[in-house]
Amino acid sequence: MAEKFISLRNLQFLLYEQLDAAALTKYPYFADHGKETFDMVLETAMRMSRGMLFPVLGEMDKKPPEFRDGKVFVHPVVAQVMKACGEGGWIGAQAPYELGGQQIPTTIMTAFRGIFSAANYSAYAYPFLTAGAAHLILSFGAKELIETYVPKMFAGAWQGTMALTEPQAGSSLTDLAATALPTAEGFYKIKGQKIFISCADYESTENVVNLLLARIEGAPPGVKGISLFVVPKKRPDGQGGLAGNDVACIGIYHKLGYRGAPITQLVFGDNDDCRGWLVGEPHKGLRYMFQMMNEARVEVGMGAAAIASAAYYASLEYARQRPQGRPVTGKDPLAPQIPIIRHADVKRMLLFQRAVVEGSLALIFQCSHYVDLALVTEGEEKEKYELLLDLLTPIAKSYPSEMGILSVSQGLQCLGGYGYCDEFPLEQYYRDVRIHSIHEGTTGIQGMDLLGRKVVMKNGKALFLYLAEIEKAVAGGRAIPECDACAQALAEAVETLKEVTASLTGLAMKGEIEPFLADATLYLELFGIVAIGWQWILQAVTAAKALGASTDAADADFYRGKIHTCRYFFAYELPKVRGLAARLKESGDGITVQMKPEWFD
Amino acid sequence: MAEKFISLRNLQFLLYEQLDAAALTKYPYFADHGKETFDMVLETAMRMSRGMLFPVLGEMDKKPPEFRDGKVFVHPVVAQVMKACGEGGWIGAQAPYELGGQQIPTTIMTAFRGIFSAANYSAYAYPFLTAGAAHLILSFGAKELIETYVPKMFAGAWQGTMALTEPQAGSSLTDLAATALPTAEGFYKIKGQKIFISCADYESTENVVNLLLARIEGAPPGVKGISLFVVPKKRPDGQGGLAGNDVACIGIYHKLGYRGAPITQLVFGDNDDCRGWLVGEPHKGLRYMFQMMNEARVEVGMGAAAIASAAYYASLEYARQRPQGRPVTGKDPLAPQIPIIRHADVKRMLLFQRAVVEGSLALIFQCSHYVDLALVTEGEEKEKYELLLDLLTPIAKSYPSEMGILSVSQGLQCLGGYGYCDEFPLEQYYRDVRIHSIHEGTTGIQGMDLLGRKVVMKNGKALFLYLAEIEKAVAGGRAIPECDACAQALAEAVETLKEVTASLTGLAMKGEIEPFLADATLYLELFGIVAIGWQWILQAVTAAKALGASTDAADADFYRGKIHTCRYFFAYELPKVRGLAARLKESGDGITVQMKPEWFD
Repeated sequence: MAEKFISLRNLQFLLYEQLDAAALTKYPYFADHGKETFDMVLETAMRMSRGMLFPVLGEMDKKPPEFRDGKVFVHPVVAQVMKACGEGGWIGAQAPYELGGQQIPTTIMTAFRGIFSAANYSAYAYPFLTAGAAHLILSFGAKELIETYVPKMFAGAWQGTMALTEPQAGSSLTDLAATALPTAEGFYKIKGQKIFISCADYESTENVVNLLLARIEGAPPGVKGISLFVVPKKRPDGQGGLAGNDVACIGIYHKLGYRGAPITQLVFGDNDDCRGWLVGEPHKGLRYMFQMMNEARVEVGMGAAAIASAAYYASLEYARQRPQGRPVTGKDPLAPQIPIIRHADVKRMLLFQRAVVEGSLALIFQCSHYVDLALVTEGEEKEKYELLLDLLTPIAKSYPSEMGILSVSQGLQCLGGYGYCDEFPLEQYYRDVRIHSIHEGTTGIQGMDLLGRKVVMKNGKALFLYLAEIEKAVAGGRAIPECDACAQALAEAVETLKEVTASLTGLAMKGEIEPFLADATLYLELFGIVAIGWQWILQAVTAAKALGASTDAADADFYRGKIHTCRYFFAYELPKVRGLAARLKESGDGITVQMKPEWFD
Repeated sequence: MAEKFISLRNLQFLLYEQLDAAALTKYPYFADHGKETFDMVLETAMRMSRGMLFPVLGEMDKKPPEFRDGKVFVHPVVAQVMKACGEGGWIGAQAPYELGGQQIPTTIMTAFRGIFSAANYSAYAYPFLTAGAAHLILSFGAKELIETYVPKMFAGAWQGTMALTEPQAGSSLTDLAATALPTAEGFYKIKGQKIFISCADYESTENVVNLLLARIEGAPPGVKGISLFVVPKKRPDGQGGLAGNDVACIGIYHKLGYRGAPITQLVFGDNDDCRGWLVGEPHKGLRYMFQMMNEARVEVGMGAAAIASAAYYASLEYARQRPQGRPVTGKDPLAPQIPIIRHADVKRMLLFQRAVVEGSLALIFQCSHYVDLALVTEGEEKEKYELLLDLLTPIAKSYPSEMGILSVSQGLQCLGGYGYCDEFPLEQYYRDVRIHSIHEGTTGIQGMDLLGRKVVMKNGKALFLYLAEIEKAVAGGRAIPECDACAQALAEAVETLKEVTASLTGLAMKGEIEPFLADATLYLELFGIVAIGWQWILQAVTAAKALGASTDAADADFYRGKIHTCRYFFAYELPKVRGLAARLKESGDGITVQMKPEWFD
């Protein structure tokens, strides 16, 4: 079994050298903290992950949750993880002091969550789905609702969930059909069915708090008539106890991966006794949910990057230890075999993984940093961070998810036949990482969001702000000899991105909406490559400067590796922009739009 | 459960309309057959697959082989499949009459095997690994060896295997260490360990015939000292019975997919009583094995394309049935939902799959056709077919294997969350198809084979013959209005391929061997895209001509779909050549070669 699943050194590089997260403590909101607090957060995450989560990675996969007599039984470690996260204050760590939180920056907690995800993605899901649900109640719920639910959730005693998906409405939230009937007592009577709800029922938690989307009777059709409710599995009985709330789990799914977490089918109100409490105002549920969803999307990207990280280190360890073959220029069969890490093609597979993993992590931390900065700034500055975050969220979700699949696959490939066998963790990572391009909005949905909404919103303001950020990075890169060629290549790719964007929005302006959006997934891919290129330039510049100042040998290897991986990215990954642009400039031909369903056979 | 796993109509198109396989019967060797025989072969494969193999696809996955008390137990259908294939004459179908075969063309039997593979890849493996092993004995073994083993194998009574891989020597055959000690009785005493051997032990077969590579005592080191042996699990005792041959299965692997077939670890000669019989001459084992390996490589490509085919039809069925969302230009929430096949992005995912599946199948049949033509022709013509086959084998192996992974992934994606669950077969196909880029030579090995050996052999003769074939196809395409633009694009891509090849071989001529081969995997990818483009032009031209002559509505839809999928391939897939070429022209920079192992952390 591999020992390493994430690089603490790299997290420190991204947090302190690249983003200067320690400088957040200059803002009053974070002023109680210092770099020592942040280091403690990271170290705690590493310690908990090594001691509790990582050792049961394979076991949770091989002994998935069981559904018996209407009850769900999960691995015993889940109760420990929830308890430890509750006691440590990690579930509510980002919340304000007055709401029971610790005001830890999102940037830092993203690292905490990333460490957990890399160690054991299923185990990570329980506490941090709870954190997301609690955050939603905190943001929009009434005082009483907050007081009733949030402390229990922060303590890890009650599990939180997001209950959106219904059988007839997967990606189409317009078609949600769960209903909420107002009552005179202030609560609503809930009826409906939800599917694919992670961790929404299991025996070792006291209670489950579902954040559920439903329509209040008489609400307008479509997404404008959706409201958000708190619908617990058990409701407070008014006497300090809990009573059943007519929420039944009718089954769990058997899945390709992510097997340590139960994905449930729920029925609400089958006996007409399911109560829900409205969060915020009626009919604004989708907007509220999207706050959580956008955070969740960046976290899905983090989950994918984290699993790809674990796969990278597992394949790296194997590649260093496995002797096989000889140098291409020295085939003497009597010479000893060399470790496969010395073969160029294996180094290519490792560089690819590192480029994807560390490029993705850099983008995710960039987004988390925008979250923190938007929280502590005001006016135009705040708007800038919010717009950048909005624009980059579909990239931070989809690039790590899609490329994470390929990255783990290359990790598996490094092990040859062993990669296909469960003696090594690669085959599990390969299964686990396949969920991320599906949940919290498929890649297709992210593409539509980016091109159809984010790029064009406010007359392209977010895009212009983003392009200005890249220009700054290009200028920074051009000033450093080791980064100059890459920076020039990035500048060219940005020109391509602009041309493609103009060509596509030109279709929209001509009213050719179908061809405009038909290749949105490819546009997302192109946009993602440029964004990761941007992050690699930033990293290489930081590393090159640090290398000049560093005397530590291990640090020097780390920085040289960073710079070389940046070169790899620009030599092998950035050129993919060319093929994508060639296609996207022709999107007006509407090839997919014209394809008739009856021609597929 | 999906109903369809492969398109018989498409197989008929490729065999009869595209390649004119029926014309093979003009050659004396195939003269006993006619199109009716070939149709019967295809129909039998469909009937057996529908009745026997496909119904247990999921069951064989969920109840994989068990290893208990040194014995391997497999699904009961295996014995039925072996018996039915033996009785039907399918295991020996391609062999000459005098050796118990039926002289069915490889082109036709490739279709038979493809149908089996699409229905249930694990179940396919048992009879057709046996066929490959028997073919090797037939080709190089002495008469007595043939008579002892081949009839039992053709009858499906004895299982055949290829026993190459050893723990310390995966891809590095140079390092094989199994030994063979000559005895006065004519047999050799075998000692050694083999791993990852498919189907090499299970209770419901009478015997297992391992085709094993070992070194005769005193043999030269490296691949020049490897000999080929028949090493049965039980050896004929000279009295019509079988006696133990000191071959022990010590375990089976638990794998990501392909779970219906046991992948074994074997120990030979632990009690010094394992006998092997030399096949052909000493020290020529690798050459013999490579005959089988090359056939096996094309078949691995077929297996991947077949699984991708099954995934395509499963996702197509789902996309037609699943209502979700509304047209992008008509978002009225009160309008009914439309089937997802009407969304451009879903059509893109389906077109991608079809382009990969049918492009791959076309190339595989092209290769099989070369096998048949090489068998029945002589002199320069025969050499031409052999060279084309040699050149294209790494492509026929790797393009379907690598792209099959992506194709099945897109199939899974069409189903959203359901694709991740085992209610639908996509998640199994996703696991099953991951083996093909590993077994019978990883993709990295195929790249080295193509660039380091095939492209440069005989001063590039194979490549020149191949380029002439493409030129013919381009000329054919340019003459048909629907194909003209694609044909021009192919001609440009061929120019790019020539430039890249010249640039890389230029490195080799300067003695820069490491950079020359460092990006061989990317060269393989580029070469593969061009080859599939070639096959798509050929298919589109055939379809366009047939469409002009056709009056049948279903046929017309089929042909229009072919032409449109060709357009898709050239619009979406061919442009990838640009990014690859941009990289490959810079391979001299040696980025992967220069990366130091200590920089990876």
